[in-house]
Amino acid sequence: MEHDLVTVTIALNAWHDRVARVQQLLTTFSDEQLLREVAPGKNRGIYLVGHLVAYHDALCTILDLGPRLHPELDSAFLQQPDKSGMPMPTLIELKQYWTEVHERLARDFQQLPVSGWFARHMAVSEADFQQQPHRNKLSVLLNRTNHLVYHTGQLMLLK
Amino acid sequence: MEHDLVTVTIALNAWHDRVARVQQLLTTFSDEQLLREVAPGKNRGIYLVGHLVAYHDALCTILDLGPRLHPELDSAFLQQPDKSGMPMPTLIELKQYWTEVHERLARDFQQLPVSGWFARHMAVSEADFQQQPHRNKLSVLLNRTNHLVYHTGQLMLLK
Repeated sequence: MEHDLVTVTIALNAWHDRVARVQQLLTTFSDEQLLREVAPGKNRGIYLVGHLVAYHDALCTILDLGPRLHPELDSAFLQQPDKSGMPMPTLIELKQYWTEVHERLARDFQQLPVSGWFARHMAVSEADFQQQPHRNKLSVLLNRTNHLVYHTGQLMLLK
Repeated sequence: MEHDLVTVTIALNAWHDRVARVQQLLTTFSDEQLLREVAPGKNRGIYLVGHLVAYHDALCTILDLGPRLHPELDSAFLQQPDKSGMPMPTLIELKQYWTEVHERLARDFQQLPVSGWFARHMAVSEADFQQQPHRNKLSVLLNRTNHLVYHTGQLMLLK
């Protein structure tokens, strides 16, 4: 049990640290920077920000934390690539959603007991989880942290 | 103990999966692609590959796995930024080092018992580890996976 607490601490620290780094980037980038492509012909900063907000908002579903805050973002930022012509929120709105979504997750993560992270996530059935106990909520958190870091490497190129 | 095994399985699967994805990229990129900058004025592919090989080779030290295979890479790929003028191996050599380093790590990781991942890493003292039990080998593995994924997001821009 002590190891469980240690593991969850490591995973949550990494998540919060990586979220904070991008939040810091968002305060330093100008709108003009965020509207640029990270490399010629690739995604724009604004798309990656919206993509991360939508993807993290969807954590509520797979981690069983209750209703999502911004499901309306999926069409422009998850179901379509950048420059699809789908309407997007403004950068001011997106930054506000970023804060809302991550503050909500931080609260819910704090309330989840350590044992809850070793329980199944909502995209795996009870029966499958018996056979595949690594498909737990902790694995989702670690995976989403990796996804966040992947796109952070790209956002950093806007510097 | 069952949770420990689950956790280590999740972490090792993520590592091996992310290493394999970059290894796959290296077989599909041409030399010309790997000699390009990932974005104008940023690191070249060859530098990121060497940087990852050197950084992962250094895992041997912090995880107490024995002597490193390629400490000579540090000067060009860890201590200096790209385009420093330091001599670099060829791409053929770097790809060979990539394979050597990751095959060696895979063997050593397989031999480490589950409990070993919850022991301290070599950059923290016994005394400090008593107070900070999250500074274990598992945290190093998770952190290096994040670092790998960060640069993978950049390498993907060479596509």
